[in-house]
Amino acid sequence: MKMLTFMIQEKNNKPIYLQLYEHIKSEIQSGRIEAGSKMPSKRKLSQHLAVSQNTVQAAYEQLIEEGYIYSLERKGYYVAEIDHIFHLEEKKQELLHKGAAETEKIIYDFSYQGVDQENFPFSAWRKITKDVINEYDKELLKQGDPQGHLYLRQTIAEYIRQSRGVDCKAEQIVISSGTEYLFQILIQILSQEAVYGIENPGHERLNLLFKSNRANYEVLAIDELGMNISEVRKSRVSVLCVTPSHQFPSGNIMSINRRAQLLNWANERQDRYIIEDDYDSEFKYSGKPIPALQGLDKGGRVIYMGSFSKSLSPALRISYMVLQDELLRIYHKKLSFMICPVSVMLQKVLHRFIEEGFFERHLNKMRNLYKKKREILSEEVSEIRKKLPKDQSLTIKGADAGLHLLLEIINGMSEKELVESAAWHGVKVYPLSKYYLAEKNLPDKPSVLIGYAAMSKEDIVKAFKLLGYAWFNIKNGEI
Amino acid sequence: MKMLTFMIQEKNNKPIYLQLYEHIKSEIQSGRIEAGSKMPSKRKLSQHLAVSQNTVQAAYEQLIEEGYIYSLERKGYYVAEIDHIFHLEEKKQELLHKGAAETEKIIYDFSYQGVDQENFPFSAWRKITKDVINEYDKELLKQGDPQGHLYLRQTIAEYIRQSRGVDCKAEQIVISSGTEYLFQILIQILSQEAVYGIENPGHERLNLLFKSNRANYEVLAIDELGMNISEVRKSRVSVLCVTPSHQFPSGNIMSINRRAQLLNWANERQDRYIIEDDYDSEFKYSGKPIPALQGLDKGGRVIYMGSFSKSLSPALRISYMVLQDELLRIYHKKLSFMICPVSVMLQKVLHRFIEEGFFERHLNKMRNLYKKKREILSEEVSEIRKKLPKDQSLTIKGADAGLHLLLEIINGMSEKELVESAAWHGVKVYPLSKYYLAEKNLPDKPSVLIGYAAMSKEDIVKAFKLLGYAWFNIKNGEI
Repeated sequence: MKMLTFMIQEKNNKPIYLQLYEHIKSEIQSGRIEAGSKMPSKRKLSQHLAVSQNTVQAAYEQLIEEGYIYSLERKGYYVAEIDHIFHLEEKKQELLHKGAAETEKIIYDFSYQGVDQENFPFSAWRKITKDVINEYDKELLKQGDPQGHLYLRQTIAEYIRQSRGVDCKAEQIVISSGTEYLFQILIQILSQEAVYGIENPGHERLNLLFKSNRANYEVLAIDELGMNISEVRKSRVSVLCVTPSHQFPSGNIMSINRRAQLLNWANERQDRYIIEDDYDSEFKYSGKPIPALQGLDKGGRVIYMGSFSKSLSPALRISYMVLQDELLRIYHKKLSFMICPVSVMLQKVLHRFIEEGFFERHLNKMRNLYKKKREILSEEVSEIRKKLPKDQSLTIKGADAGLHLLLEIINGMSEKELVESAAWHGVKVYPLSKYYLAEKNLPDKPSVLIGYAAMSKEDIVKAFKLLGYAWFNIKNGEI
Repeated sequence: MKMLTFMIQEKNNKPIYLQLYEHIKSEIQSGRIEAGSKMPSKRKLSQHLAVSQNTVQAAYEQLIEEGYIYSLERKGYYVAEIDHIFHLEEKKQELLHKGAAETEKIIYDFSYQGVDQENFPFSAWRKITKDVINEYDKELLKQGDPQGHLYLRQTIAEYIRQSRGVDCKAEQIVISSGTEYLFQILIQILSQEAVYGIENPGHERLNLLFKSNRANYEVLAIDELGMNISEVRKSRVSVLCVTPSHQFPSGNIMSINRRAQLLNWANERQDRYIIEDDYDSEFKYSGKPIPALQGLDKGGRVIYMGSFSKSLSPALRISYMVLQDELLRIYHKKLSFMICPVSVMLQKVLHRFIEEGFFERHLNKMRNLYKKKREILSEEVSEIRKKLPKDQSLTIKGADAGLHLLLEIINGMSEKELVESAAWHGVKVYPLSKYYLAEKNLPDKPSVLIGYAAMSKEDIVKAFKLLGYAWFNIKNGEI
């Protein structure tokens, strides 16, 4: 481990993670650590350098991500081929159009597009997949059902009926690869005259989707209770896109009263629809579960959308929607050329994963874990608050459900400065204004979005120490 | 095997397959064969009934397809739960809007949407998949690269450079789930004023895709050499969609002269493009391989599309296209909301499958196998021809490449009668007129499309005996 012995500069502003990562990277680039050689285990290296195992792990993860080292199951970490890597790095940079400086600095990324990294049920998934890849199953060699495999649609229908009160049969379900693909189907089956109403703030780039598909849309301001019916009535909107279970990004849960108002609006005319994107409804931490809008509606005006991106993994690319009979008829008539984009094998694996109880178990486990992560985050916020002078503040918003929350920060910095100072300390947070799809009703107080699902409990603590330092100059121990 | 003993009616017009299938089905439906019980092996049952093993296999496959029995690897065939089956059958019928009578009769389906059913490299695929589902691989829990995994794009770029002469780098490749998804991307990045030109006859429902996406299109007649340049020049078309390697459905290979004419046309103006759908280019049986149009073009006017649906399986849902720099720039700018619909895991499996040489081996094997199937089919056609009177004929067209061909039949029947009489004898063939997207230049001689990839060599022989009987009243022995 000679080449991995180096001076950790404790007084350096740069976190130890980053120092270790940069050292190993330069050793590999220079050829001093040879391709194919085995890296010391996390335990050994942490003992050797007298740093925590988590520090080593973070460094290793960054190296894996950038292709410098790779891991072999039950064997350890190995150094990748170097020529190949330079090659990749060049390409990556070309592709990402990002300055190397910026990407290298980030150690803790509070992205909302991720799930817990340690608890995916890999062994169950592997076992089922192995079973599903079966010589005798001719379905694996044929084009599948355009709407998605019937068995998977049956299990999804059952699941959303029970867990979300969605009123549906398997025949009404259309499986696709992501919300954007579902929206593209809807744009094709709904009237060309439709005007889509999208929440502001709302899902990043949803406006681009409508624009690119040459559909009309209007951006509608929301308040703390969700979509405001008077805003809707003032607009030309006929199809309303909402996230009632946990508004993105504000985190608000839409009140029952608002829900009723929206349903009444939708039921007044036959060309009105509500698209309910229930993207992270699996995770609600307090209060009684509120059933999906779709289940409350008796008029068939709500199109329900769900996804396995938050509950399992965004790398799976499986989402679904529930069409009522009339739209289903148009779908069959107009979109007979569309084939379900999810591979038949994957659909079969997911079907069995749900059917055999693994999904429910995983959800229960994750619900507890994410709750715990949220609590830890909340404790860290409290710790920081204790040390704040009266004119400064740090407030959590929208944390009752889902996998992200908002932080409202009053410390004299602008939103841009908050994001930059966090990044300079190795922490990536997301400016709330990024999710404003129109230049109106911008947030009055500087706020950032924090996704905590993908980060370990330890990392949440460490990242908040860095944020405390970055935003309020509160100094802490090692990191 | 008492319950499986029944009288085979040799003189019945109904093939033995079908008689056996119907007998077993009624035994299961009535409960005389119990759910969960083991079926006799193919060998035993064929000895017992004194029919060929292939006859038993065809009956079993039909039963599997309809959910009456299922197979367990290395164990055999078992009877499925009966309640469940009735349930499924009802749903299937609702979904497919098909008469039961029609579906039940077909034993041999000459669909072009399939691959060989016996030679998929399941064990390699299973092994790689098992390896790829790796706890340490954090990429399996993150949203992947929007264009598709870089490693897979690199292997695809390498593959189409070498095998098809396509001029491209990994950065230019966009991976998606099927031709229809690639077209939908193109419709969004090409000008809204674009007029798409599609081949007539051509890919079924391609017109619906453009219509549904509110894009302008014109249908252009093709002749034996492919797209006719004077037809193109007479039209308003700016984006030409062609299948030069093996025109679908005619099977013609576009002449070099025609290719040059199309490229000249495209290079005259900056808003002109050619979309080259190279859907089954892996399989060419005679003559020198002709490189892709994309490689011949020096002006960057050709958008190349490829797919793994024919070379591996249509159930995988993986296709790709190559964008030149300008279109790539628009794609990055306008479609930043689009995520690659193929699961990261599947992309990694395919990457390794190609990288480790399994793909090439599989292609070589399949090329030989499909060539053999084509020869057998051709022999069967010759056999029939020997017995024909002078005023009748049976001619193969477009068989130099790909996985389908055309049969031109002169026997006094209309195209519709040919298809119906084949179906009545248990053989599904596809009327050529189905692929005419406009009511002009309809085929002058009655023709049907025959896809032979998914059918076993034995079944091709048997199906042609039935076709000989159906179309020319030529009687044969057992089937």
